[in-house]
Amino acid sequence: MEKVALWGMWELALRAEQISGNPFDVEIKALFAKDNRKMTAFGFYDGKDDDGSYIFKIRFMPDAQGDWAYETISEDAALDGHTGSFNCTAPEAGNHGVARVNGTHFNYGDGTPLYPFGTTCYAWIHQPEALRRQTIETLKKTRFKKMRMCVFPKSYDYNKNEPEIYPFEGNLADGFDYTRPNPAFYKLLDESVVEMANIGIEVDLILFHAYDRWGFSTMSKEDNHRYLRYVVARLSAYPNIWWSLANEYDLLRHLDIQAWEDFAKIIQEMDYVEHLTSIHNCYGFYNHSRNWVTHCSIQRQDVYKTTEYTNEWIAEYKKPAVLDEIGYEGDISWGWGNITAEELTRRAWEGYVRGGYPGHGETYMSDDEVLWWSKGGVLKGESPARFDFMMKIAEQMGPISYLPKFNPWDLPVGGVEGKVYLAYFGFNRPRFRDFYSDNPWLGNANMPEGRYRVEVIDTWDMTITDAGEMEHDKLYVKLPGKQYMAVRLTKIG
Amino acid sequence: MEKVALWGMWELALRAEQISGNPFDVEIKALFAKDNRKMTAFGFYDGKDDDGSYIFKIRFMPDAQGDWAYETISEDAALDGHTGSFNCTAPEAGNHGVARVNGTHFNYGDGTPLYPFGTTCYAWIHQPEALRRQTIETLKKTRFKKMRMCVFPKSYDYNKNEPEIYPFEGNLADGFDYTRPNPAFYKLLDESVVEMANIGIEVDLILFHAYDRWGFSTMSKEDNHRYLRYVVARLSAYPNIWWSLANEYDLLRHLDIQAWEDFAKIIQEMDYVEHLTSIHNCYGFYNHSRNWVTHCSIQRQDVYKTTEYTNEWIAEYKKPAVLDEIGYEGDISWGWGNITAEELTRRAWEGYVRGGYPGHGETYMSDDEVLWWSKGGVLKGESPARFDFMMKIAEQMGPISYLPKFNPWDLPVGGVEGKVYLAYFGFNRPRFRDFYSDNPWLGNANMPEGRYRVEVIDTWDMTITDAGEMEHDKLYVKLPGKQYMAVRLTKIG
Repeated sequence: MEKVALWGMWELALRAEQISGNPFDVEIKALFAKDNRKMTAFGFYDGKDDDGSYIFKIRFMPDAQGDWAYETISEDAALDGHTGSFNCTAPEAGNHGVARVNGTHFNYGDGTPLYPFGTTCYAWIHQPEALRRQTIETLKKTRFKKMRMCVFPKSYDYNKNEPEIYPFEGNLADGFDYTRPNPAFYKLLDESVVEMANIGIEVDLILFHAYDRWGFSTMSKEDNHRYLRYVVARLSAYPNIWWSLANEYDLLRHLDIQAWEDFAKIIQEMDYVEHLTSIHNCYGFYNHSRNWVTHCSIQRQDVYKTTEYTNEWIAEYKKPAVLDEIGYEGDISWGWGNITAEELTRRAWEGYVRGGYPGHGETYMSDDEVLWWSKGGVLKGESPARFDFMMKIAEQMGPISYLPKFNPWDLPVGGVEGKVYLAYFGFNRPRFRDFYSDNPWLGNANMPEGRYRVEVIDTWDMTITDAGEMEHDKLYVKLPGKQYMAVRLTKIG
Repeated sequence: MEKVALWGMWELALRAEQISGNPFDVEIKALFAKDNRKMTAFGFYDGKDDDGSYIFKIRFMPDAQGDWAYETISEDAALDGHTGSFNCTAPEAGNHGVARVNGTHFNYGDGTPLYPFGTTCYAWIHQPEALRRQTIETLKKTRFKKMRMCVFPKSYDYNKNEPEIYPFEGNLADGFDYTRPNPAFYKLLDESVVEMANIGIEVDLILFHAYDRWGFSTMSKEDNHRYLRYVVARLSAYPNIWWSLANEYDLLRHLDIQAWEDFAKIIQEMDYVEHLTSIHNCYGFYNHSRNWVTHCSIQRQDVYKTTEYTNEWIAEYKKPAVLDEIGYEGDISWGWGNITAEELTRRAWEGYVRGGYPGHGETYMSDDEVLWWSKGGVLKGESPARFDFMMKIAEQMGPISYLPKFNPWDLPVGGVEGKVYLAYFGFNRPRFRDFYSDNPWLGNANMPEGRYRVEVIDTWDMTITDAGEMEHDKLYVKLPGKQYMAVRLTKIG
């Protein structure tokens, strides 16, 4: 019997000699059954083979080991009624399954915690191969666990080059046929998703965005739906896919809320894997209370303050908060893209200690117009090393929550209640902090009784210094009078 | 005829051999008349003279040149019915009169603009003389135009030393008689106010505050009113007085809004000079819409963001915004007192470019516990020089307003519409800025037509670099990719 690893991809290719009309409009799906469970995976047209046959594919990602049976269903006789079975074996090394929400945090399918601190290269797949290779090589040297990237190419400052291949048939000069996705492009997207999986990176796949000169952002409802169905049918069987309905949905001004709800409904109907799904704002948030929104996907809220609200958003939506576009380390003209590495790292720690998953981004001006934020390439900044350091701490500590009752007004404290507390000082630079005090200004922020191991963390210099053990009522911690310090208090008795 | 300079102090001393009861409860005032105008100034008891007589004084600050006549009125026969006259001459050099509100800015009485960027030494007058002298000498080297300071001593971290003299009769061991102000203390306060006037500094005099171990913050309503009447009677004739009803009124939890309104009413009834009057918050603002509130007196609003709201407050209250306690350059434990010079300077510029008057403060830990914020002494930080630089620019440019229609989302722009525009980049550090663009993301923030002189201001390194002249549609300004830059665009055609 054919074998496929757990959370791996099983694929069936079917041929049809003749198709009347648009082959992208042919309905094909398959029922997959194991024991009492049945799941439906949708197929997609993948172009003609060398002898002119129409190739349709159905992909399936099994979520349980054992024998699975399938049967295809199609309005086209050549595609209908194919049956068979395969055996699902143990997962391949490194495949932990599909990301799931666990409270206000994340796990992989196998229960391993996932800390999706990520980065963004919106249009890296639309760049020449050498640059794509360089992007992958760069990512291998980082700890990032998520990549925010677009299906469609990007048209914006520093994004004037044409992609070599488009997601629809056609070209810029002659126009595009928005009714016909380009299978060759989607093979590239498939490969890119796999490449990310191979280096342990979740793909936060942006399905629509407004930065466009090809008409992809202003297609008809029918074309949008056909496109979306194509992408979901094609990519759902990859374990590392997250659906991001939009980058800055509110800049797609011709699409109203119902349009986005309709998109979400298509995904929910077709995606039997139930990948994480969200939608990213420019101005105000989309209603993250909607059932289909698995986690908050958040852009900075103003020039000055964003991740400092993280705990409020988590409390409001009771969902994880993933904070992409909290500002980019760089030096371009716009305020979102010219903050220092120190400021980006500060924002990241503010979001992390409050229980969220802030992401990295980089926009250094460059004569070759290859800015990481969009095209990938190499990282030039100083913040990736700090993200790496922060992520190591996050992975050591386990999922943390903002702990309001331990928070005085001037110092966010997160942690695992009763076990470990992490206080972050940001741009403040005290020479000491008294964590237990009869000073009335401390409010109720005293640490609970017990004995603590005290560590002083320099989030910029990336050092962790043991400051000894202290009783809860003598938690006086000396600090170096520098910015970007944190204190970790681990309860040991 | 006796002479007194305009906005100077005329003083009348009267003696009474016998006073039954508390001499601080004796009512004494005088009518002052010039042409058709009449004004009432209240007198105050100033202690006994060497032969045991009770000395009462009436002070008057004439606001117009020419002959003035006076007549005293008192329930005490010895103090009642004294008459006389004096001639008011031209003001002494350097005395520009009493600060007045001019729109959302300030003038002196003679119409000269006043830019009240100040500093704070809450308890400097409660320190030993040598330290007071040092404070004055330090201030002489700065450009600060306002000092925020308390009548009452302060009890708080780093403020454990006892003052040599108290504002009421008594001492800490035996208790205080809150019905009897101590004239010797008020002579010191008089002198301190004059010393400030001599170096061109307005006194933002804090009448009540909560940081107390002497009982001055919890006196009875009657004692509070007696004290307040005493201060107003005694000090109104100094031109450089501003009344600050409280530092952090909301920490005086036993005083309700009516108590503050009653205080304001006493000031309004007694202060014929009509000094600037406000009240400072800890948490939420007092209602700055009240008629007696001449200007907003504002503390930081949260750890991250304060002066960035300045334009909103000015728009809401239609009054000037004076921003004290926007954070202190220093390294003490609390978040309000451990920001860098860069961050304090950044906050100051954010407030300035938005049309407000942010103030300086300093809290560096020191073995001698002499922190500028409370005790004065010497300045150790790097921000005073930057305040000096900013104030020179402010004085050159004249009063500026936030100009919303020239503000893109990421760059505050203030100025004098049609004449000069000042854009402040804060912690952002672009390598260029295009002030006129067909980029749709710039919104309506294009500069108006004309020709501009362009200057690049480094607010930290304190340099102003001429970047040439540019037409409005070619306002592309190269920047050094550093934080804390500003661009000034002066219309020259």
